Amino acid sequence: MQKTAAILAIGDELLSGRTRDANMHYLAGWLTERGVALTEARVVPDDAAMIGEALNALRTRYDYVFTSGGIGPTHDDITVDAIAAALGVKVIENPQAAAMVRAYYGGRGIDVTPARLRMARTPEGAELINNPVSGAPGVRIENIFVMAGVPRIFQAMLNAIEGAIEHGEVIHSCAATARNLPESMLADQLRDIQAALKGVTLGSYPIDGDEMGVTIVARSQNMAIADQAINAVAAAMRALGAEPEMEDRK
Amino acid sequence: MQKTAAILAIGDELLSGRTRDANMHYLAGWLTERGVALTEARVVPDDAAMIGEALNALRTRYDYVFTSGGIGPTHDDITVDAIAAALGVKVIENPQAAAMVRAYYGGRGIDVTPARLRMARTPEGAELINNPVSGAPGVRIENIFVMAGVPRIFQAMLNAIEGAIEHGEVIHSCAATARNLPESMLADQLRDIQAALKGVTLGSYPIDGDEMGVTIVARSQNMAIADQAINAVAAAMRALGAEPEMEDRK
Repeated sequence: MQKTAAILAIGDELLSGRTRDANMHYLAGWLTERGVALTEARVVPDDAAMIGEALNALRTRYDYVFTSGGIGPTHDDITVDAIAAALGVKVIENPQAAAMVRAYYGGRGIDVTPARLRMARTPEGAELINNPVSGAPGVRIENIFVMAGVPRIFQAMLNAIEGAIEHGEVIHSCAATARNLPESMLADQLRDIQAALKGVTLGSYPIDGDEMGVTIVARSQNMAIADQAINAVAAAMRALGAEPEMEDRK
Repeated sequence: MQKTAAILAIGDELLSGRTRDANMHYLAGWLTERGVALTEARVVPDDAAMIGEALNALRTRYDYVFTSGGIGPTHDDITVDAIAAALGVKVIENPQAAAMVRAYYGGRGIDVTPARLRMARTPEGAELINNPVSGAPGVRIENIFVMAGVPRIFQAMLNAIEGAIEHGEVIHSCAATARNLPESMLADQLRDIQAALKGVTLGSYPIDGDEMGVTIVARSQNMAIADQAINAVAAAMRALGAEPEMEDRK
């Protein structure tokens, strides 16, 4: 049985158009490689009520919830407080986190100010997620991983929690792309192939900027069935006069 | 009063890591330019129950809901059916949509197959959104705009609904970036500037790949106040020995 996961990306800048979120896409690939199904994503502003409501919806429904953003030292970093409020626990200055912040900044000859120590505040009962990039740790509490929004730090924190994620059966995927073949030409064949083969999902994706081409992706826990499906798709493409470009399965 | 909006991006490929969503970011900028506040985003798989539940949560809460994805001709395109089910209305073959599909394909000497006519199915009572790129229209019903997932078509459909969106006061933003200045050095000053100026929001964003630099963004409906805030931020940066790079307000 695959574990399920959700991501809650937090930040006004993601919704104003200033910043294009990168963490959802990265996490999606990372979880897929580990056989965990990313099943939902939400983006909310730096608003405690909205963060709390989304978190409570996601944490009860999925095995893992990852948040990104809002754990820095400035006034707009409210994620820790919002999450603690949603869980009904206090925020404390975590001694271990404070030691990590002191060690990081102290070791670089930088003052450990109250603003920096703000990054040592965690919900009571939380464990820490190591941050090798910039010192201030992330937080794990219950099934929630509270991580930084800066992509390089988000990715480093994912490495740090590798051991906490239970791997499942990996979904294999392989793809065939046909140029100059609109997806509607293949619709009937795809439906038939999907119906004939159990345990495979076919996705059909028009090529952006060239709506007369299409990529078909076959996904299955069984690599042989994914191969069988994509070979049937490729044959259907050839029967329509196209020469499919095959993508290695992974 | 600004109108609010949400986007519901639909597609297994967005959650598997195969495709990086581009429509949320584009829509965010497009709405910001028109003084509409994108307030929430969700991504769900091609699953009718999940689409319906998310849609019903968003459409009652925000003035506008935009969906992207799942309106093509193939078996995995279930968005129209899921939305109709969520609204409790029937799906019909829309005569006007069928005429558009026939005109587009017929005009190119391509057969109008049942699969292509699948793209003419709409919830009963829907209006159409013109698709100048590939013929098959989007759908507007109540406060919901059902649009294509392919970014070029999504963007063309946004142009087509320009007149249906009520513009509000635009939030102006301007920014100052300091290299080699960690955001925690500025935390107290930002808090003070934010407290002293009404009607402005300051956001603090570490620079990715260089966590010792930071961009501060001031947002306000009042351009003069945004300017005043960012000038105060720039002065605080200079007082710490940094030379801010200013970004033109928009």
